[in-house]
Amino acid sequence: MPEYKIQYFNVKALAEPLRFLLSYKNIPFDDVRIQKEDWPEIKKTMPMGQMPIMEVDGKRAHQSLAMARYLAKQVGLNGANDWEDLEIDMAVDTINDFRNKIGAVQYEADEEVQKKKRVTLDSEIIPFYLEKLEAMAAANDGHFALSKLTWADLYFVGILDYLNFMAKKDLTENHPNLTKVKETVLALEGIKNWVAKRPETEL
Amino acid sequence: MPEYKIQYFNVKALAEPLRFLLSYKNIPFDDVRIQKEDWPEIKKTMPMGQMPIMEVDGKRAHQSLAMARYLAKQVGLNGANDWEDLEIDMAVDTINDFRNKIGAVQYEADEEVQKKKRVTLDSEIIPFYLEKLEAMAAANDGHFALSKLTWADLYFVGILDYLNFMAKKDLTENHPNLTKVKETVLALEGIKNWVAKRPETEL
Repeated sequence: MPEYKIQYFNVKALAEPLRFLLSYKNIPFDDVRIQKEDWPEIKKTMPMGQMPIMEVDGKRAHQSLAMARYLAKQVGLNGANDWEDLEIDMAVDTINDFRNKIGAVQYEADEEVQKKKRVTLDSEIIPFYLEKLEAMAAANDGHFALSKLTWADLYFVGILDYLNFMAKKDLTENHPNLTKVKETVLALEGIKNWVAKRPETEL
Repeated sequence: MPEYKIQYFNVKALAEPLRFLLSYKNIPFDDVRIQKEDWPEIKKTMPMGQMPIMEVDGKRAHQSLAMARYLAKQVGLNGANDWEDLEIDMAVDTINDFRNKIGAVQYEADEEVQKKKRVTLDSEIIPFYLEKLEAMAAANDGHFALSKLTWADLYFVGILDYLNFMAKKDLTENHPNLTKVKETVLALEGIKNWVAKRPETEL
């Protein structure tokens, strides 16, 4: 079995889908968590000045979605053919668009601008995306694609605490099908074991 | 051969990588271009209220990167194994991050905020990404990944006019390796034929 290393900050956020995917098949990995004070030095050595990064037998990769898609193939949570992979990618990219839109508000440096953007986020963007995502999960029997467990489900539940943190609300509340996605993933044996032993962090 | 339809506005922008990928293998497709005045009605029928969309034998897809990845597999511009696909995806996602960062400025509705953000874009973000992308193209012999032609190259050149339009500058100027990627893609027989016959549009 290859040696996996996931390197990120001591948070769930963008690395948690990767940790979920490996944990789903109980694949051991080196869970490296960089302390804030060490980051400026380490940042210089990162491909795009960002984390998470992944190493597989010492070969380094970056870009969280690209790495998640790779791991999904290793653990059998990808599609059975090109069209199925497209359906999963469509779901993942939609979830990621949602993340980017929430993140654009959360990381807006100008406080006044942020305040205005959060109003639009709360009144328009979040309701729009939640309605669409809830409908996708309803149409796929509590999953995001193919009416079965795929890496889109693990991606969503993996970043959910981070989304909730940035959105300042529980996004799955009152959305029974999104709640079902969450409960299904968290009930998976490998994920349950991982969640029980992972460091406790807010996001 | 499946029947392909690409539906978008009468611009290159996000649909052009899809049109490039099909044209690369001279695959005919229905090139539907929606007029601005018809968009409000059509928007309601789109999966996420957005275009481009693609239809393959009547089955509808959305999400431009997901569709491009699917088409890349149909025309043989994907990787030979999971790690190669990861390397291509890393390049594509990096190019797409660059697009998102330029787009965040271009589509900032508040004029004052936009002006301030464009200063940071020009002085920090664009130079940072161009240095990284130029280095990637240098390390891969005038390609973005695997030192050979992949869909990452077609994706970059496909959206380049759109990037230039939003950035208000010629991004490949004085970047010999990015220029090489561009020239290589535009010299491909299928792409040359497509460019010669496509509607002329600014972005």
